[in-house]
Amino acid sequence: MALTGVLRPGHAQIRVLDIEESAKWYENVLGLVPMGKDASGRVYFKTRAERDHNSVILRQADRAGMDFFGYKVLDKTTLDDLDKKLQAHGVKTERIPAGELLETGERVRFKIPTGHTIELYAEKKDVGNATGYTNPEMDVIDGPGITPIRLDHCLIYGGDIDGAREVFTKVLGFTLVERVKLEDGTTDLATWLTCSAKAHDIALVRHGEDDKLHHVSFQLGSWEQVLRAADIMSKNRVSIDVGPTRHGITNGTTIYFFDPSGNRLETFCGGYDHYPDMNPITWTWDEVGAGIFYHNRKLNDAFLSVVT
Amino acid sequence: MALTGVLRPGHAQIRVLDIEESAKWYENVLGLVPMGKDASGRVYFKTRAERDHNSVILRQADRAGMDFFGYKVLDKTTLDDLDKKLQAHGVKTERIPAGELLETGERVRFKIPTGHTIELYAEKKDVGNATGYTNPEMDVIDGPGITPIRLDHCLIYGGDIDGAREVFTKVLGFTLVERVKLEDGTTDLATWLTCSAKAHDIALVRHGEDDKLHHVSFQLGSWEQVLRAADIMSKNRVSIDVGPTRHGITNGTTIYFFDPSGNRLETFCGGYDHYPDMNPITWTWDEVGAGIFYHNRKLNDAFLSVVT
Amino acid sequence: MALTGVLRPGHAQIRVLDIEESAKWYENVLGLVPMGKDASGRVYFKTRAERDHNSVILRQADRAGMDFFGYKVLDKTTLDDLDKKLQAHGVKTERIPAGELLETGERVRFKIPTGHTIELYAEKKDVGNATGYTNPEMDVIDGPGITPIRLDHCLIYGGDIDGAREVFTKVLGFTLVERVKLEDGTTDLATWLTCSAKAHDIALVRHGEDDKLHHVSFQLGSWEQVLRAADIMSKNRVSIDVGPTRHGITNGTTIYFFDPSGNRLETFCGGYDHYPDMNPITWTWDEVGAGIFYHNRKLNDAFLSVVT
Amino acid sequence: MALTGVLRPGHAQIRVLDIEESAKWYENVLGLVPMGKDASGRVYFKTRAERDHNSVILRQADRAGMDFFGYKVLDKTTLDDLDKKLQAHGVKTERIPAGELLETGERVRFKIPTGHTIELYAEKKDVGNATGYTNPEMDVIDGPGITPIRLDHCLIYGGDIDGAREVFTKVLGFTLVERVKLEDGTTDLATWLTCSAKAHDIALVRHGEDDKLHHVSFQLGSWEQVLRAADIMSKNRVSIDVGPTRHGITNGTTIYFFDPSGNRLETFCGGYDHYPDMNPITWTWDEVGAGIFYHNRKLNDAFLSVVT
Repeated sequence: MALTGVLRPGHAQIRVLDIEESAKWYENVLGLVPMGKDASGRVYFKTRAERDHNSVILRQADRAGMDFFGYKVLDKTTLDDLDKKLQAHGVKTERIPAGELLETGERVRFKIPTGHTIELYAEKKDVGNATGYTNPEMDVIDGPGITPIRLDHCLIYGGDIDGAREVFTKVLGFTLVERVKLEDGTTDLATWLTCSAKAHDIALVRHGEDDKLHHVSFQLGSWEQVLRAADIMSKNRVSIDVGPTRHGITNGTTIYFFDPSGNRLETFCGGYDHYPDMNPITWTWDEVGAGIFYHNRKLNDAFLSVVT
Repeated sequence: MALTGVLRPGHAQIRVLDIEESAKWYENVLGLVPMGKDASGRVYFKTRAERDHNSVILRQADRAGMDFFGYKVLDKTTLDDLDKKLQAHGVKTERIPAGELLETGERVRFKIPTGHTIELYAEKKDVGNATGYTNPEMDVIDGPGITPIRLDHCLIYGGDIDGAREVFTKVLGFTLVERVKLEDGTTDLATWLTCSAKAHDIALVRHGEDDKLHHVSFQLGSWEQVLRAADIMSKNRVSIDVGPTRHGITNGTTIYFFDPSGNRLETFCGGYDHYPDMNPITWTWDEVGAGIFYHNRKLNDAFLSVVT
Repeated sequence: MALTGVLRPGHAQIRVLDIEESAKWYENVLGLVPMGKDASGRVYFKTRAERDHNSVILRQADRAGMDFFGYKVLDKTTLDDLDKKLQAHGVKTERIPAGELLETGERVRFKIPTGHTIELYAEKKDVGNATGYTNPEMDVIDGPGITPIRLDHCLIYGGDIDGAREVFTKVLGFTLVERVKLEDGTTDLATWLTCSAKAHDIALVRHGEDDKLHHVSFQLGSWEQVLRAADIMSKNRVSIDVGPTRHGITNGTTIYFFDPSGNRLETFCGGYDHYPDMNPITWTWDEVGAGIFYHNRKLNDAFLSVVT
Repeated sequence: MALTGVLRPGHAQIRVLDIEESAKWYENVLGLVPMGKDASGRVYFKTRAERDHNSVILRQADRAGMDFFGYKVLDKTTLDDLDKKLQAHGVKTERIPAGELLETGERVRFKIPTGHTIELYAEKKDVGNATGYTNPEMDVIDGPGITPIRLDHCLIYGGDIDGAREVFTKVLGFTLVERVKLEDGTTDLATWLTCSAKAHDIALVRHGEDDKLHHVSFQLGSWEQVLRAADIMSKNRVSIDVGPTRHGITNGTTIYFFDPSGNRLETFCGGYDHYPDMNPITWTWDEVGAGIFYHNRKLNDAFLSVVT
C-alpha cells in the first residue's frame, strides 16, 4: 500500500482549568461536535468532518498544556511492528488498554526526547461521514462556531529536537519538510515533519524547557473561512495571538489564538503538498521572521516565549 | 516510511493535432512553464510549483487522446519491486530506458485491463522550488495564464474497470475512495482511487471502448482561482464543457474544458483527505447526477459520451 | 445632498402558490428573517443586514410572478416631487395609504410602459442594524440558509422597454449602465439602469408579453458565498437555472434558481461601480451570450423564455 | 438624477521623496497604470479599471504627505453651484485652470477647517474601460502588482474635524456613516462620511496638527486579493503597518502599508452600503480598538501617531 505505517494525527488530550467552561467554548466557539464524557470526567470532541469518534479530549487540571498527541496507524500489525521498532531504537513504550479513551483501541505510548508523550493506535470507532456513506450531501456550515475540518497537527517545544526528529523520521517514517537554522547555520531551531503528503503533521521547536505545547492546529477550508474564524473569535472575545496572516513555512494561512485556559490553538488553511522524494526547504536565522509570519517578516515576542 | 511505493501522478503524455498551436496554448492559456523539446519533437511542460522537470508532454498526432500516464515511485528499489509484483499479477511490463523522456529515469510501462498505458518511474530531475530551497518567497501569480499548482489526476474510460482497479489497489497500493453503482446496485460504473491522502489520484469509468481519456486534471488553490480560470478560458475562447461547479464525489470544485485538440482537461480545487483506513463512499445510480455535478444534480450529455 | 431622489430597491411583493410552504422556504433555504404577517395574509421578510422592516412580501395567489417592486426615496418631499414629475411625464399615479404594507409609509404607485407596477415610498420603520448602532459586532452567518445581504435589483420583461427606460432615466434619475442591441444594431434588447453607483438597480428585457418577471436578485458578499448558496440549493433540491457563473454585463457572479412557485431568483455578487458621468457599455447581438453568461458565452433556452 | 453633486473621490496628489523610485514602485508593486508626466515633473497614474485619465499624481518634495484630494462632481453647472455654496458657507475658494493637471478640467480648490486642500472638478478625460465599451472581456489580473480597482477614499488628520465635517455634510452633501466618540462621550474622535452609497468617501480623525494624511485607500475585489496584496508587499519588502485584518467600522478588510516615502496607503475590500436615510453607527471610546481593528480589538501605537 502506498500510504501505510503512521497515517495521521488522530487525537490530542488538552489540559483545561475549568472543564465546563472549556467544553462550552470548544463546542460553541471552535465549533467541535461533543462526543461524550468518560468515567474520569474527560470530555470528548471531534470535528464535523472527522469520521473517527474523537480527536480532542479535554482533561481538567491545574495547569494548561497537552497531555499527549496520538497518531492513527494503518492496522494492528503496524502498531505491533512500530512498537518493536521504537523499542529497538531505545524508546521505552507502554501499552494503554483499549477503552481507556472512549471508543479507542489499544495505544502504544512513549516519550520522545523532548519529553512529550506521543501515542500510536490502530482503532477508533468509525462514527460515519457527517452526511453519510451513501449519496452524501455537502456539509454546509450552519452554526455559529468556527467548525474546522480536522485536527491538523501540533507544534511542540522542548530541548532535544534532534533526538525527537530521529524518532519521527527513522522509526515512524516521517519526512523532513522545512527547517529553520540558528545563527550558527548548523543547529536546527525548528523542524516541520510529515507522515503523509501534507506540509506538516508535527513541528518541533528547540526550547529551554521540555514537554511544552506551542499550539494544536485545526484545518480550515479557505482563506475566507480564516476570516470568518477571526470574526467569530473577536465576537466571542477570544484572545488572538497573531493573524489572520500567512506562514512563509508551509505557505499556509493562519490565526494563532488562545483557549480559555491559555492553550494556543491555530486555525490553518492551505500548505503545499510534500512527498518523501522532495528536498526540504531551509530558512536561515536572519529570515526566520518571514518564515514564521510571512507578511510582516517579524517574529512577535510571544512566538518563542508563550507556551503551555 | 509512512508514504512509500507509488507517490503521485507525475506525467501525462497528451496527443495534440497541431503541436505549435498547442504549445502556445498550454503556455499562455493554461499557464504551464515550457521545459523544452526532445529529438522526436515532443514539447515538455511543468507547472510553476512542480519541482520535477516535467509533468505534461505534448506529442503531435493525427488524433487526440493520452498516450500514457505516469506515477512517480519512492525510489529505484520500489520500481523494481513493483515491476515484479505487476508481473506476478499477470501484467506484462516493459522497461523504457532513462532519457527517453527528457530528464526522466527508467520507466516501467504496462497496460491495465482498460487498455490504458500506465508508467512508473523513480527519477526525474529536480529543477527546484519556484522560489528556491532557501528562504523562498511566496510564488504570486504574475502572468496571464491559469497557472495551476500541479498535475492532479486523470479520469480514464474503458471496459474492464474492475480488472484495472485490481491492478491499482492490489498491486500498486491504491485505496478506493468513492464509487458509483449502475442500476443493478452491484456493478461499478466508476471508481475513484488514491495512492496518497488526496481524494483521488486516478478515476475509472466503465465504457464500451478501451483506452479512452475523459480528462487530465490540474489543481488550483481556491474557488476564486477557479473563477479566474473560467474568466481566462472565456477571454481566450476556450470551449468549456461544464463549470464552474462542484462535484459531489470528492467535494472538489471544477471546470471541464477542452484543449485546442479536443482533449478534455479539468481545473480542480479542494477535495477532502482520504486515508486507507476510511470507508469508501457509494453513489447509487439514481443519484449519479449529484455525484458528478452536485449543483444541478444532472449529468450533461457529454460526460458519458465525449472522450478522446 | 450627493445621493438624493430614488435611493434604492426597497421591496418586492412576490406571488406564491402555497404561502405556508413558501414562507418556510424563504426563511430556511434563502435565509431571510421573518417579519410578520398582515391582516390580508401576506408574509413579510427582510435580510439580516437590512435595517428597514421588510423587503420581501409574499402573497398567496393562483399564479406566480411579482405584484410590484418598490424603491425607497430620500424623504416625503422627494416623494411628492417625484409624484408630480411622473404625472407631468404622463404617468398616472395612485397613493397607497401608510400602513397598507406593514410598517411602511404612504406609497406612490404607478405602471410603467412595460405594464409593471412600480412603487415609491419614503418611510419604512427602522428596525436597526443586525448587531446594533453602538459598537456593533460582525454579523457572522450562523444558520443553515443562504442569508443574502440585501434585496439588490429585479429584471423585468415587457414590450415597451424604451418607454419604461424613459420613466426611470428622465423622471426618476436612473442612469443607463449597459445595454444589449438586437440584430439591427439599433433596437435595445435589454438595458441595465442604476439609481445609485451600483451596477444595476433594475434591468429591462424586451418581450412579447407585458408585466413579466425574469428574476428578483439578492446580494451575496463573495464568490465563496455564491458557492455556499449553490451547495444549499442542491441540498434542499432547489431547481437551479444557471450557475454559479459570471455575467459579462456588470461583471457580477450569479446563480439563477427558482422558488417553490417557479419564480426565478438570483444570488448575485460583485458588479462594478457605475457613476452618472460614465459611458454605458454596449453588447452587440452576436455577443449577447457572453454578455449574459460570460463563461460559456451562450444564452440558455430558459433565459429568454421562462418568466412569471 | 438620483446621484448628483459630488460623485466620488477622483484624484490624490501625493508627495514623494524620490520620484523615480516612487514611480517604479507605484507601477510595479501597487500595480497602477502609468499615464504620463507633466511639465512640472509630476507623474500620473490610474488603476486599470478607472476610466478617467488619472487618479494618483506623484510630486517630488522634501517631505511626504498629500498636497490635495479631489472629488469629481456631476458637471460644470454643479461645479459652479458648489463653488458658490462653499463661499456662502465662508469657505474661500480658488479656481485652478483646466490643464494644470493633465487631461483635467478646471478645479475649484479650497481648504477645509482641518487645513487640508480639497478640490472639485467636473471634467477628466475618459480614456475608456480597460477592455472597451463594446463587448468587453473580463479584465483578469495578469501582472505582478497589487492592481487595485479604484482610488477609494482617504483618511485625514487635523484639528477642527467638526468644522470639516460641516463642509462635507452641509455644503457638499456627504452623509455621516460612522463615528468614534472620545472618553467624554460627546466629542468625535473620528467620523466616516460618504457622498455615494459606499461606506466612506472620506474619514476625519481629530489630531493636534493640521493638514496631516493618515492614508490614501485603494479598493480590492476580494479578501483573497487582500491576501495576494500582502504576499506582494512582503515579496517586495514593503513595510506593512497592520493587516490583513478587518475594520469594525465599515466592516471592510484591510492592509495598512507604507510607500517608499513613508506615506501610509491602504488596500481595502468590502464595506457595507450606506444610504442617506440610514442612521450612523457610533463607537464608544472603550471599544475604539474593535472599531478600528476588529480582530484583536486593539489600536496599534502607529494608528494615532504616524501620519505624513
